[in-house]
Amino acid sequence: MSGNLNVGIAGLGTVGGGVVKILSDAASLLEERCGSKITLKAVATRDRSKVRDFDVDGSVKWYDNALDLCGDSEIDVVVESIGGSEGVALELCEKSLKAGKHFITANKALVATHGKRLAKIAEEKNVVFAFEAAVAGGIPIIKALKEGLAGNYITHVAGIMNGTCNYILTEMQETGRDFADVLKEAQGLGYAEADPSFDVDGIDTAHKLAILTSIAFGVQVNFKAVYIEGIREVSVLDVKYAHELGYKIKLLGITEKNENGVRQSVYPCLVSLAHSLAKVDGVNNAVFVEGSYVGKVMLEGPGAGRDATASAVVADIADIASRRISYPFGIKTSSLEESKPISIEKREGEYYIRIVAHDEAGVLAGISDILKSKKISIESIVQKPVKKGADASIVVITHVCSEMDIRKAVEKILKIKGVVGTPMVLRIES
Amino acid sequence: MSGNLNVGIAGLGTVGGGVVKILSDAASLLEERCGSKITLKAVATRDRSKVRDFDVDGSVKWYDNALDLCGDSEIDVVVESIGGSEGVALELCEKSLKAGKHFITANKALVATHGKRLAKIAEEKNVVFAFEAAVAGGIPIIKALKEGLAGNYITHVAGIMNGTCNYILTEMQETGRDFADVLKEAQGLGYAEADPSFDVDGIDTAHKLAILTSIAFGVQVNFKAVYIEGIREVSVLDVKYAHELGYKIKLLGITEKNENGVRQSVYPCLVSLAHSLAKVDGVNNAVFVEGSYVGKVMLEGPGAGRDATASAVVADIADIASRRISYPFGIKTSSLEESKPISIEKREGEYYIRIVAHDEAGVLAGISDILKSKKISIESIVQKPVKKGADASIVVITHVCSEMDIRKAVEKILKIKGVVGTPMVLRIES
Repeated sequence: MSGNLNVGIAGLGTVGGGVVKILSDAASLLEERCGSKITLKAVATRDRSKVRDFDVDGSVKWYDNALDLCGDSEIDVVVESIGGSEGVALELCEKSLKAGKHFITANKALVATHGKRLAKIAEEKNVVFAFEAAVAGGIPIIKALKEGLAGNYITHVAGIMNGTCNYILTEMQETGRDFADVLKEAQGLGYAEADPSFDVDGIDTAHKLAILTSIAFGVQVNFKAVYIEGIREVSVLDVKYAHELGYKIKLLGITEKNENGVRQSVYPCLVSLAHSLAKVDGVNNAVFVEGSYVGKVMLEGPGAGRDATASAVVADIADIASRRISYPFGIKTSSLEESKPISIEKREGEYYIRIVAHDEAGVLAGISDILKSKKISIESIVQKPVKKGADASIVVITHVCSEMDIRKAVEKILKIKGVVGTPMVLRIES
Repeated sequence: MSGNLNVGIAGLGTVGGGVVKILSDAASLLEERCGSKITLKAVATRDRSKVRDFDVDGSVKWYDNALDLCGDSEIDVVVESIGGSEGVALELCEKSLKAGKHFITANKALVATHGKRLAKIAEEKNVVFAFEAAVAGGIPIIKALKEGLAGNYITHVAGIMNGTCNYILTEMQETGRDFADVLKEAQGLGYAEADPSFDVDGIDTAHKLAILTSIAFGVQVNFKAVYIEGIREVSVLDVKYAHELGYKIKLLGITEKNENGVRQSVYPCLVSLAHSLAKVDGVNNAVFVEGSYVGKVMLEGPGAGRDATASAVVADIADIASRRISYPFGIKTSSLEESKPISIEKREGEYYIRIVAHDEAGVLAGISDILKSKKISIESIVQKPVKKGADASIVVITHVCSEMDIRKAVEKILKIKGVVGTPMVLRIES
């Protein structure tokens, strides 16, 4: 690497275009902050003629094939903005690193799936593999975990890391509309994809969580070990009851380490209104971290969007230009432990259970008996008055108990005469 | 510097003791994260025999005089935990840097007062001068501004940076008790000093703000240019009325840059309940940043306390051990511009004015006339019904107007027959 840093960008879509824009608009600022110049040397895109809302300098080389960037000896850093965990993105990453080029990406699927192997190549080649933009968009959470909180044993990370889901849950809360209705609106506003499953089924959050888990705990990234529930089943009734009881429903990615291993989970859950995460509304993301010395820290901001995501990519570029290097996952890749996954079934915590029942005598008593038989103690129970003949919702908030006991209890509750459908069970996070 | 990093700590009080503890307890973690070993080589304290709740390894050298650390050729980094902007702390900093040692401090007064000169020495000697712990305790806000948001032109920074004040204002809000009462309690709990003036008069916040201003805008640190108002004059009535109108009162440090220069201010102000900063309660700190690309980002966490502050000091040590270097104020010290201070009198914004008046006809009309004559338009006005004969509080919320017009209007309002005392004027921040 010369005194200056030459960048090649693969893909001129949302993120790639944003990076081109910042590198151009903030060129002098970046040169001042880094003490060296960052130059866009090449871009690779299949469709050069497409109309774009930013200019690419005339001196920049254009490649049709992204993989040509790996062979360009002028390029120090390859920025990947193609997407997907396999295919060209993966091949570009491997070849770039093997060619001795630094590699920066916002591609959470790629890092969550192949992160450990790619980090190993980067270390062998003594180049940087960085992905700040892959988690929580513009929020510098990876830097905070790896560097800003370097002296802390991290005990717990919980994040709102999908703006689409947070937007939908916030709107359900604020307008009383149901999931399908708000989703449709979010699609119209561009906050949700035409196929929203990656977002609303929790997979996107799980990718990000797997990355944070590796960094927080010094373990190998293990996306497959993430327990995932999405938000499709959350009804506006749950949102309403939760709020009445002093909670908001949020889709959280949660990772915890103890002496038995690591538990990674993504699910919609009740968060006390007093908790910082409950106060994060709309499309915003936030990551809450507990460290052994710092205590509780939260970073909040835009988790998506062209400029915010590009801001994080540019921060990674600036780090390289400033010669600030860190291990991809916070410690040497060879030192990352293979963590023992802890099953969600081992969870101990509080639960929200909503049971729909015909308004018959005996249902409440039946529920109470079953919970008592499983030694699940009740924190509060609410049965809303209903019109004669209509179904009633009975909402139970438990004290701390085990996931297995809750599951067994719910199986029995199902069979009480008068109970309609499957009870809705949501975890409560404190 | 060898492969390992040797640390000397001056002062074994709160912060220094915390650093000793983390360096010992988290030694293996730090070695993994930094790829090199950090060793406590020496401590300097006047009272070696004092009983402490942490152990200093037997191989560590003890000095009675902190300045002896500068002459110890084994030491790579000096951590200053003495305090004060002058005297030993200043001398130690100068001499350490001149002796070619990295220097880390949590001392906001020192950095706010002498930061530019000290940074210049550090650059001449090619050593690090770092002070993450000086602003907002454990929150890695300096790293976020210098590195995580490196590609952004920062336009606005606003922070709750004094836990004592935030605790007092939160308690006033939640319990309806007045300032003096809550202050006394805070002193009992150890949240406020016996002499609380540094905190409650806004000086501590101003020190931190001056440091953030320099980093955010690439200007020379200029503590003297900070306009400062503390929270002593805020009454529980103001807190109450503000809340009724949809605001909380927070002591904010605010810095803004425009084409005319930089305005740095510290004052208690009304923050909309919907704003992220309004949701930060108790002793917590938070810094809200607006960047040209990232948008709005907020970092929240503990702003004080031994372990949280030491966590930030250790992060600075870890950066050096990892060879991650950045300019003390984000760009080369010689490039820091001398910014033109913008006077508070140039502020344009919304205002809260609370006027106490005998319940006489004509006062409200008089206020309205004066505001109209200054072209100050009213967003809302509230006069609470009072018992016959008692004084009434009239609260006015203005639309955007100029500070000078408000000041002139208030001078005139003072003279209305029936108005009692000086109206309380608070700025509203959006």
